[in-house]
Amino acid sequence: MLKIAPAPRAALAERFRHVRALTLALAAPLSDADATVQSMPDASPTKWHLAHTTWFFETFVLRDHVAGYRLHDERFPFLFNSYYEAEGRRHARDRRGMITRPSLDEVRAYRAHVDDALLAALDDLPDAARELVTLGCHHEEQHQELLVTDILHLFGENPLEPAIWPAAPKVPVAMPGPIGWIDHAGGIVRVGHGGEGFAFDCEGPRHDALLAPHAIADRTVTNGEWAAFIADGGYRDPAYWLADGWAWVKAEGIAAPLYWEQRDGTWTRFGLDGRRPIDPAAPVTHVSLYEADAYASWAGARLPTEFEWEAAAQAHDSHAGNQMDAAGPVEPRPAAGPAFFGNVWEWTGSAYRPYPGFRPVAGAVGEYNGKFMSGQFVLRGGSCATPRGHARACYRNFFYPHQRWQFTGVRLAKDL
Amino acid sequence: MLKIAPAPRAALAERFRHVRALTLALAAPLSDADATVQSMPDASPTKWHLAHTTWFFETFVLRDHVAGYRLHDERFPFLFNSYYEAEGRRHARDRRGMITRPSLDEVRAYRAHVDDALLAALDDLPDAARELVTLGCHHEEQHQELLVTDILHLFGENPLEPAIWPAAPKVPVAMPGPIGWIDHAGGIVRVGHGGEGFAFDCEGPRHDALLAPHAIADRTVTNGEWAAFIADGGYRDPAYWLADGWAWVKAEGIAAPLYWEQRDGTWTRFGLDGRRPIDPAAPVTHVSLYEADAYASWAGARLPTEFEWEAAAQAHDSHAGNQMDAAGPVEPRPAAGPAFFGNVWEWTGSAYRPYPGFRPVAGAVGEYNGKFMSGQFVLRGGSCATPRGHARACYRNFFYPHQRWQFTGVRLAKDL
Amino acid sequence: MLKIAPAPRAALAERFRHVRALTLALAAPLSDADATVQSMPDASPTKWHLAHTTWFFETFVLRDHVAGYRLHDERFPFLFNSYYEAEGRRHARDRRGMITRPSLDEVRAYRAHVDDALLAALDDLPDAARELVTLGCHHEEQHQELLVTDILHLFGENPLEPAIWPAAPKVPVAMPGPIGWIDHAGGIVRVGHGGEGFAFDCEGPRHDALLAPHAIADRTVTNGEWAAFIADGGYRDPAYWLADGWAWVKAEGIAAPLYWEQRDGTWTRFGLDGRRPIDPAAPVTHVSLYEADAYASWAGARLPTEFEWEAAAQAHDSHAGNQMDAAGPVEPRPAAGPAFFGNVWEWTGSAYRPYPGFRPVAGAVGEYNGKFMSGQFVLRGGSCATPRGHARACYRNFFYPHQRWQFTGVRLAKDL
Amino acid sequence: MLKIAPAPRAALAERFRHVRALTLALAAPLSDADATVQSMPDASPTKWHLAHTTWFFETFVLRDHVAGYRLHDERFPFLFNSYYEAEGRRHARDRRGMITRPSLDEVRAYRAHVDDALLAALDDLPDAARELVTLGCHHEEQHQELLVTDILHLFGENPLEPAIWPAAPKVPVAMPGPIGWIDHAGGIVRVGHGGEGFAFDCEGPRHDALLAPHAIADRTVTNGEWAAFIADGGYRDPAYWLADGWAWVKAEGIAAPLYWEQRDGTWTRFGLDGRRPIDPAAPVTHVSLYEADAYASWAGARLPTEFEWEAAAQAHDSHAGNQMDAAGPVEPRPAAGPAFFGNVWEWTGSAYRPYPGFRPVAGAVGEYNGKFMSGQFVLRGGSCATPRGHARACYRNFFYPHQRWQFTGVRLAKDL
Repeated sequence: MLKIAPAPRAALAERFRHVRALTLALAAPLSDADATVQSMPDASPTKWHLAHTTWFFETFVLRDHVAGYRLHDERFPFLFNSYYEAEGRRHARDRRGMITRPSLDEVRAYRAHVDDALLAALDDLPDAARELVTLGCHHEEQHQELLVTDILHLFGENPLEPAIWPAAPKVPVAMPGPIGWIDHAGGIVRVGHGGEGFAFDCEGPRHDALLAPHAIADRTVTNGEWAAFIADGGYRDPAYWLADGWAWVKAEGIAAPLYWEQRDGTWTRFGLDGRRPIDPAAPVTHVSLYEADAYASWAGARLPTEFEWEAAAQAHDSHAGNQMDAAGPVEPRPAAGPAFFGNVWEWTGSAYRPYPGFRPVAGAVGEYNGKFMSGQFVLRGGSCATPRGHARACYRNFFYPHQRWQFTGVRLAKDL
Repeated sequence: MLKIAPAPRAALAERFRHVRALTLALAAPLSDADATVQSMPDASPTKWHLAHTTWFFETFVLRDHVAGYRLHDERFPFLFNSYYEAEGRRHARDRRGMITRPSLDEVRAYRAHVDDALLAALDDLPDAARELVTLGCHHEEQHQELLVTDILHLFGENPLEPAIWPAAPKVPVAMPGPIGWIDHAGGIVRVGHGGEGFAFDCEGPRHDALLAPHAIADRTVTNGEWAAFIADGGYRDPAYWLADGWAWVKAEGIAAPLYWEQRDGTWTRFGLDGRRPIDPAAPVTHVSLYEADAYASWAGARLPTEFEWEAAAQAHDSHAGNQMDAAGPVEPRPAAGPAFFGNVWEWTGSAYRPYPGFRPVAGAVGEYNGKFMSGQFVLRGGSCATPRGHARACYRNFFYPHQRWQFTGVRLAKDL
Repeated sequence: MLKIAPAPRAALAERFRHVRALTLALAAPLSDADATVQSMPDASPTKWHLAHTTWFFETFVLRDHVAGYRLHDERFPFLFNSYYEAEGRRHARDRRGMITRPSLDEVRAYRAHVDDALLAALDDLPDAARELVTLGCHHEEQHQELLVTDILHLFGENPLEPAIWPAAPKVPVAMPGPIGWIDHAGGIVRVGHGGEGFAFDCEGPRHDALLAPHAIADRTVTNGEWAAFIADGGYRDPAYWLADGWAWVKAEGIAAPLYWEQRDGTWTRFGLDGRRPIDPAAPVTHVSLYEADAYASWAGARLPTEFEWEAAAQAHDSHAGNQMDAAGPVEPRPAAGPAFFGNVWEWTGSAYRPYPGFRPVAGAVGEYNGKFMSGQFVLRGGSCATPRGHARACYRNFFYPHQRWQFTGVRLAKDL
Repeated sequence: MLKIAPAPRAALAERFRHVRALTLALAAPLSDADATVQSMPDASPTKWHLAHTTWFFETFVLRDHVAGYRLHDERFPFLFNSYYEAEGRRHARDRRGMITRPSLDEVRAYRAHVDDALLAALDDLPDAARELVTLGCHHEEQHQELLVTDILHLFGENPLEPAIWPAAPKVPVAMPGPIGWIDHAGGIVRVGHGGEGFAFDCEGPRHDALLAPHAIADRTVTNGEWAAFIADGGYRDPAYWLADGWAWVKAEGIAAPLYWEQRDGTWTRFGLDGRRPIDPAAPVTHVSLYEADAYASWAGARLPTEFEWEAAAQAHDSHAGNQMDAAGPVEPRPAAGPAFFGNVWEWTGSAYRPYPGFRPVAGAVGEYNGKFMSGQFVLRGGSCATPRGHARACYRNFFYPHQRWQFTGVRLAKDL
């Protein structure tokens, strides 16, 4: 994110407006109450996402780079700082759902205030500040995806299982055929962000990686295949599971992906359009790393490393595939042909650790990525809830191995 | 509650309308979000109180006694049953805050629907059903008080500490003088509900109790006296505390009543009108039984038993004092002269256990009180948040010894 | 305990020797490891019981009343103080099982040292100190019972389920007939300790209590009756249970008394002589207050109050019945004729609270009972593990309502 | 471990005797109680280590490969299986400290029985079984180190802080000079086990790894340097810490390495010889990955990757350095000259994940390593408690990032 040339001013304003508008559109169907409640410590209220992304621009751009700017509300930094220790004390993460006030409308007014101030200042911002605007847009895109998955989780906790949007029309598709394998002879490949365009700090430096001979699947695992795994006792045999995963299965009583329930003998899933039968042809989603790894063991395969994935994905268009273009009931859909982007984030077997030569940037925004580099696994590719254009071949998403409320799925790999 | 003569129909309708209206008035200042969030497992969202009290009438009166009544929404019983095991499965108590839908307006519509149906049916209801309407009104009054204290707790969790109502004008009062003691020579007294008017099942049967010679204070402990207890190290010396209380103090880091904070050397409290300095002349409130007991030890006294309290209170007017007449920023206020009702619920030293001959009524409403008779202590008197007319000399409130989000306070007693 | 005339010196020495010898005899079958491990926070290691009872004499008699006495080991008070806050910091209760050193032999040496010093000093002790020796003997008897039940719990945690003692020979007995009821017309009775002989402070002051007309069972509930309760679904129907009890049943998966397991269709129990089939004629034991209360509800009865129990028991010999005379595999046995003492401690429906006029004694020994007077229920009578002579009609034992590793049982009562 | 040529029979017998004897020697100073107690779920009792290592030989060699062998005790497999799901149900890991019986002597008898049977059978064992004997010896060496660190932890929980062995004589050494840096130009290196001699499955397959240009320190961080980190506020500034690490510091109140306490202004540590002042010249130990990473950030460096470490260590003798030769008060000591083996296990920045082509062996022993490959970090080098000969350049030890009861330390690295 630091070596990018600042975007031209007009393009940046347009980009900023577009990003900010999509966030509001995603929140449009929500009531004040919907936008306020926190369903679990991992998730945040929509209102918080709306305000925190605004706080980011207000703090790192307006406060730091616009002379005479006055905070919209002096009490908001305490409420809407996420985890930046350098920015001082902040509200406890697991109590974000207590903030019934300011209201959703007041938070929208906060957004409008900051939008106006930022757009008014944009032409005069120094390069460093415009870089931060660009960073803030990418940051907000990340929160757009979280907003969607957090709202899905909240509605999933409501016994009424309300739909957030009406279902999209179903397009009939053929069941995908057997997995095809893309072979790689191994050797040195070039990975990581190369300096063109924006990237987060953790995506670089660009460097060589050495791959062993392997093959990677040409599609992700489907719901139908997952149902076969369940039917074969996959969740009941510890032989397939990592030890931590098996402990998690037993402690939490895990027996299927998140949001799956068997009703009258049929597997259903809860989604943004309510509860419906699973589509056996669509990619499975809402599985943890533990489940992904167990499935791979059961299938006689393994997960790809992040660099095996990146090497294969470099040949594909990161703007293609089922990604989020607008607010609505996104969900993974059957794909035609090899696709490495969209539908589901793909668990890799790689721990989220720094690349050779990685060094966080100075100051509060340096807390963006580096401090999370323990205990998490890398996911690659982007999902149906990722704003189109946000992902790229070198993009590194990361979550803890038990987490599964994101649109996470599985692509297999194997040694050659 | 079961031996009462059913109220005349017109009076009952009036009573029903009045109770239902006050509940709505209490919720009036709240947004949908305010009414949805649950701040802790002990507390419930306002929306839940609004719906649960309605469910009570719908279930036990309309469903059971009005032919052809159709439920307003078949999914609501699962959501709004509180703890009646006989009424089937229900939503987990600590997940009540997940119910962002139905909205506050939809819950108000539910109330209106049930109100209309009940008032339409009232003239034809059998006696047993009218008794249940009476019970339902008393039940709703209990929830009115909980609604107020639960909202106070929620707003207290918000770092912005918003006021729910503007402050009431302060009337200057003199500091109360030293505690006066009301002596009692001991002997048999008659306690418990005597058959006139409504009472909950746990208040009876009326029976004899034997008192030892004792004295009971003519007022409750004030904020000023409590500040002296703190200043004297009362929260730091285990000698004053029950063992369970001391463990609680250490585990929770307790050092003052709930909502008290020292700011710039001054004790303040959070209330329905926001954060303000404590009034040293007003009764202390938001203290646990553990704190009440420790204070009494420090003061060389003890808590009264529930029958000592009742014997003294029988001479007083249970409709007098600082009780809730309307929605607004209720809080304990300095009292002039002996008062046993209003301001604060008074912890007694009596465990909440059944009276001789107590037998729960049959059916689901029999779960009302009896099953809670372990681990809790009796409180007597009524508070500033108790709807006027709800309390009486034989009324038994009960909470666990660590709980203190109700308007709870302390009256001393001693052996003679 | 404080107003008793001090025992004559020779009798006190004999008493002291006897008590101290029984404790050692109880520990005799145990290895150093057996005596060191703590099976749960509620229980203590045998070694700790051996040392703590010794610390009591060393601290309150030798240190405080014998000039020139030097502590056996200056580090022991920190390890072996139980809960006397006034005696300073102490080792955390739930870490008592970490103390592998001093060894069991070293603790025995500590006992011998203190025994010798105390017996040497006894003739010259002032009255107050001799009262403390008497108190220490009663204190040690309480720990003898805890030692037995704690060891039983530890051995029950061992999958090998070793026996501590060989089984006692079984004497054939007839099944007890139906419960007989002892009627009481109600009225004032005199209860509490009357000043003759030793009693703990919580047993007094002696005072009047007012009883309602009632009947109390002439024997406790048997294993056979309890098996019928289980077979009738007693553990699966919330209607019988206190709310806290039902929450406990569900959280802990409770389905039978502690130590019961069904093997090949037969109910067995683990005891000091290993695992054996239950004796249907013997009193049920190892049940919690919650279970006792649920059983009573199921049986259409209730638990007696502590004063109903005491009034009935006053006519019986507190030295009779199945109580502990020597080390060995004690267990409840079928009784012939009404018996109020021995076999099992009987849960009453009375919360453990102070009597009118109760005041703890000054100083550290004043922490003996008063500070535990919240959250617990009174048990009466004494058990097969109570040293004979320890219990009396006014004796008050107390435990939390979920605890059941003591020899606890159930006697029914009902209103007349 | 599976491709090794079986050791010649005589050498294997000698090796087996040696390993088994050292384990007994380590346990020699312990009482039955010392050997029975479990100080935390991560640690196991000495008796359990003694029995579990024996169970390994009995199960996988004698039971599976010796016709007619009868188990020493049929109940032991349930008690002494560690985590092999394929071997059936087993005693809960965190309840291992409940097993006061069998006694330490009985466990020693179990060892003798299995030793005799195995040595008697050794000449006739098939190759596969002899491979398992070799595996069992390496397995037992791992438990020797755990036994030492677990006993240290147990004794550290005893307020008396007993020494297990008397202190070794101190040899005066000069303070080490500043860290020197060993440069590496980067490029492909060969890592992992190459097929000569024994290795655990996770150490292979041997493969190429690509290193970036870097430098690695020629010694580990000392106690004196760590004291400077503390004095500089290293434990109080979140800027140095991984987010998970900072959460751990705050939740656990971490302010120094495990076993460090400041007494009279001097830093002391608890060790196998009791509590003594830290030696500023000796390597720091008992630090977590979180602490190691924070120190490296503070020092402007980073942790080495496991392959950077391995590349540097390949030039050194893995049998040299301060490793365990005999039972006694091992502890890290100041080293003269570069040393990559002994003293402390060195945290690397590499997550513990499989090598390319890794595949667990079939059957129960396949659970040895692969299933632990999530959430843990690799440590390299061996410690003062590692039996000499056990470690090698390709050896991979692994623990969770918060664990620190092993002899764990820190070597720095940096990018070039």
